[in-house]
Amino acid sequence: MHQERRKKEIKVVRKVLDVNEAMAEENRRQYAELGLYVLNVMSSPGAGKTTLLQKTIASLKAKIKVAVVVGDICTTRDADRLSLDHSVPVVQICTDEFGGDCHLAAHVIKEATSGLDLSEFDLLIVENVGNLVCPAEFDIGADKSAVVLSVAEGEDKPIKYPLMFRVCDVAVLNKVDLLPHLEYDKDQAVNFIHEVHADMPVFETSARTGQGLEDWIDWLVREVEAKKKAGNN
Amino acid sequence: MHQERRKKEIKVVRKVLDVNEAMAEENRRQYAELGLYVLNVMSSPGAGKTTLLQKTIASLKAKIKVAVVVGDICTTRDADRLSLDHSVPVVQICTDEFGGDCHLAAHVIKEATSGLDLSEFDLLIVENVGNLVCPAEFDIGADKSAVVLSVAEGEDKPIKYPLMFRVCDVAVLNKVDLLPHLEYDKDQAVNFIHEVHADMPVFETSARTGQGLEDWIDWLVREVEAKKKAGNN
Repeated sequence: MHQERRKKEIKVVRKVLDVNEAMAEENRRQYAELGLYVLNVMSSPGAGKTTLLQKTIASLKAKIKVAVVVGDICTTRDADRLSLDHSVPVVQICTDEFGGDCHLAAHVIKEATSGLDLSEFDLLIVENVGNLVCPAEFDIGADKSAVVLSVAEGEDKPIKYPLMFRVCDVAVLNKVDLLPHLEYDKDQAVNFIHEVHADMPVFETSARTGQGLEDWIDWLVREVEAKKKAGNN
Repeated sequence: MHQERRKKEIKVVRKVLDVNEAMAEENRRQYAELGLYVLNVMSSPGAGKTTLLQKTIASLKAKIKVAVVVGDICTTRDADRLSLDHSVPVVQICTDEFGGDCHLAAHVIKEATSGLDLSEFDLLIVENVGNLVCPAEFDIGADKSAVVLSVAEGEDKPIKYPLMFRVCDVAVLNKVDLLPHLEYDKDQAVNFIHEVHADMPVFETSARTGQGLEDWIDWLVREVEAKKKAGNN
């Protein structure tokens, strides 16, 4: 009996994901037409996404036009932090209004950006809901996805949440300023990442102190410029 | 069109949750008959659940008969850590075999414990999948639920993931040994917890150093003994 129920549940989930994929393709086509680079940033709660993005945007915005979509279940705290410097538009999605979703779906991104003129921007950063599981299953039409993990979380997250590390293109190992105070084996963590996703680039950062941010930001700038160039040709 | 789709999705989710609730009630009745106390432990990935439970079980097992169910998407790492001391039975669930679920559902707990003679135990601890969102929606029939949060995660988790803090009975604020190295406002974190769930007991612990574990374990022992006593009357 349980197996029957289970099969039904899986079928339903499959249907939701198929609908999402079609909408993600629609988003992807629109972003390609506009030459807009979209980055999907995911992590567990508290890995430091918002601080990382604050510092990243502050450094980028002189040369790249950025807009941000922030997904949370509740509160506008992250959007408030990201809008402190008023030059970058930030759209907050509270998924509570969409049934309390644990992820951002493609159609939610579409609705969230409907008030922006996307042709004005080079880069759209999506700060997804803090969750290492569900957001990995929902393509939003982004060019690349980044997973942020914190050294305070333990080394084994990549092998315990492998789908997230499989679908993402780069990993950011954040809060490295805490390493002297932890029993954290950084080499093991990186090995676990590469066990799941061979050759995945890993940026070691401390968003708080600024350590290591340069390589991460350089990578992002190169990505955005490559897409712009491809669009101009 | 999106609204229509959305309504359909919500209906489907509602159905899955209803089925789960019926099964949770079945579990609850069985646990009541046996006088078995069941604790559901939830947190984001890397908050320190496994270390907390290792220390808790080591301290309890002389006076209380404990069994453990551990949920992960992949790997048996947590179960391996919890079984190191071979005196406590540990059942690992890899939700990958159940469609990669982001939570433990009531029927999964039932299946996981089907190989144990539950009448032999006083306490069943369920270490849920690391996720601050979805496990909160799935009643498993436990007596009480505990949410573990780490001071490395930022103060605002309770108001960003309010359902989890609403459905749980106690909170464990873990990794307090890291406080000197963080800009973490512990009072604000506790205020946020109480904003969502007034009077929620908060245990401040470092599972690594052992700091604060006594109060948490005392609470758990009192809970288990109260249920045993009620069952004997």
